[in-house]
Amino acid sequence: MSINAFNPTPRTLMGPGPSDVHPQVLQALSKPTIGHLDPQFVAMMDEVKALIQYAFQTENPFTIAVSAPGSAGMETCFVNLVEPGDKVIVCRNGVFGERMRQNVVRVGGEAILVEDSWGAPVSVDKVAAALAAHPDAKFLAFVHAETSTGACSDAKALCALAQQHDVLSIVDAVTSLGGVELRVDEWGIDAIYSGSQKCLSCVPGLSPVSFSAKAVAKLEARQTPVPSWFLDQTLVMGYWAGDGKRSYHHTAPVNSLYALHESLRLLQNEGLENAWARHRAMHEQLKAGLTELGLEFVVEEQYRLPQLNTVYIPQGIDDAKVRTDLLNNFNLEIGAGLGDLAGKAWRIGLMGYAARQENVLLCLAALKQAIK
Amino acid sequence: MSINAFNPTPRTLMGPGPSDVHPQVLQALSKPTIGHLDPQFVAMMDEVKALIQYAFQTENPFTIAVSAPGSAGMETCFVNLVEPGDKVIVCRNGVFGERMRQNVVRVGGEAILVEDSWGAPVSVDKVAAALAAHPDAKFLAFVHAETSTGACSDAKALCALAQQHDVLSIVDAVTSLGGVELRVDEWGIDAIYSGSQKCLSCVPGLSPVSFSAKAVAKLEARQTPVPSWFLDQTLVMGYWAGDGKRSYHHTAPVNSLYALHESLRLLQNEGLENAWARHRAMHEQLKAGLTELGLEFVVEEQYRLPQLNTVYIPQGIDDAKVRTDLLNNFNLEIGAGLGDLAGKAWRIGLMGYAARQENVLLCLAALKQAIK
Repeated sequence: MSINAFNPTPRTLMGPGPSDVHPQVLQALSKPTIGHLDPQFVAMMDEVKALIQYAFQTENPFTIAVSAPGSAGMETCFVNLVEPGDKVIVCRNGVFGERMRQNVVRVGGEAILVEDSWGAPVSVDKVAAALAAHPDAKFLAFVHAETSTGACSDAKALCALAQQHDVLSIVDAVTSLGGVELRVDEWGIDAIYSGSQKCLSCVPGLSPVSFSAKAVAKLEARQTPVPSWFLDQTLVMGYWAGDGKRSYHHTAPVNSLYALHESLRLLQNEGLENAWARHRAMHEQLKAGLTELGLEFVVEEQYRLPQLNTVYIPQGIDDAKVRTDLLNNFNLEIGAGLGDLAGKAWRIGLMGYAARQENVLLCLAALKQAIK
Repeated sequence: MSINAFNPTPRTLMGPGPSDVHPQVLQALSKPTIGHLDPQFVAMMDEVKALIQYAFQTENPFTIAVSAPGSAGMETCFVNLVEPGDKVIVCRNGVFGERMRQNVVRVGGEAILVEDSWGAPVSVDKVAAALAAHPDAKFLAFVHAETSTGACSDAKALCALAQQHDVLSIVDAVTSLGGVELRVDEWGIDAIYSGSQKCLSCVPGLSPVSFSAKAVAKLEARQTPVPSWFLDQTLVMGYWAGDGKRSYHHTAPVNSLYALHESLRLLQNEGLENAWARHRAMHEQLKAGLTELGLEFVVEEQYRLPQLNTVYIPQGIDDAKVRTDLLNNFNLEIGAGLGDLAGKAWRIGLMGYAARQENVLLCLAALKQAIK
């Protein structure tokens, strides 16, 4: 069996992630690999930490990049913080809320579901009622930006409720980080995770995570060991400590961290608020064009994520054929529906480096031809 | 705070990993990111699977790359296969045997330790005795190539014992894969994991894993859910199924998989046996030079790993100063001692692309100056 070198045809990535990676990030990715305990690398890791703190708008000393994709970032929060028997209020309005529930169950926690329909945001009122009904709850877990639907929930209001009821908040910011307003310290978020491959425009494979002092205290007070060795943050903290000691835990994904460093640097140079505004502006253009094409949004206007536009597939249109046409004729990837929306909707991403004028124009022109 | 682009000074990596990455692999790494469900990517994943099967010398259909470093590959084996109450005979002759024990304990298994000293291989006789003494044991877990000491254990004999006693074998091949003889099917290994960054000369961050039919049957017969959602192979199998369906589980680390594809292709082009012979030949040259410098090996000759040469630090030599000199003056990284050997030994790697003539010469000449 002879296997040739892989030379992918470049694509424009306007699905739910991975998104277009900035050329400078790909360039950083392929810089020479050095040791994960090399002083040069350790100094770069300190910068990565500072840059993640900036992106999250937090001063949490416990701020790291988990050496695996966003799903592992989610698991990092649950396996470290939730102990067997802990009651967790889990908000489910799409695929990722359900995944949170599964994480709670697997660590032996008790999940209290707050349900909202697909495409709707998490209901602040329902969460308030659930917190009142379960005074023994220890956590409130919800998804800020539901990647399966494109709905944005009011993280600020939900975290304020969590603080009132003295429960810790666990927030999924995989699709929100860098694309919409997110302020970890100001909003009082206790545990948050994201992914490298959405609005940060980095390659997939890393998950920025941050814990508040209260979350760290909960971790340190655990009665049972963290069930995962790989994700045990009591061990990983030694490596990210920034005290110059860097005790070995596992081999860091060196080159992927070069890429994350560069992508976060690009975000800092642009400025967070500017990045949010750019996503919003590109969304407005795309929305105007999609509406002109007669496509209807799944999510009500006020809850729409600018970086993830979910529209119903028009009657009589062959979902798979359109997506294949876009890919084969225009090298353009848009996302299929997921879960309840499979076969019913498309998810059009405008994430990070993909949120630019030329992508909006290409997408609208190509879609117009494909659905003719 | 203004942060500059990161431009690492290139190093020659002769520690215990990461090892020198082949230039073609770095080139592959930075090819344009495409979607993880793109037909081009899915076809490449099928090739990655076939190439991992070649490297492991197995026809196991369950052969994948875990989307995280080798430590997560280890955890993948334990969380999927070992259920609460399962008895596991764990061989400990270094850091990674101890890590296996911790994995067993965290999933609620019972670890029966077979201990050998640091630098010694796992004793086949002791394992035979342990298997005889524990007829209810379900697994035998050991490290093929101990990265903390440089000792190679007789995986073939140990797996034969496991088969005789009808227990499943779990084998750590992080440092062995590609560097020394390893034949998963012929030796009857049931679960094996490795890392991308040692003798495969790929970037760190991925872990090749393979399960035998018996291991898959054990997984499928589980009475309790796999404690980790991210590493649950009953879910991941859908993505690697190769039936053209690829159900979404998590976003694959696309670019790292390009790199793994290229590194495995290089291995296949060279030929496994040739790669083993090259590591052996380079080791012989290095050994001759180290002996001439008066350095003594920690491991007895017959058990030494060619790809990881552990030597005692001579009396009166300042460990940290020598390693810093090598790094600063020659851009050469060698490894410090780990665990029981911290401060007492150096670990000199000849892994994958690092196992070449010019590295051996550089290392010997530089060490000669540094320990003068």
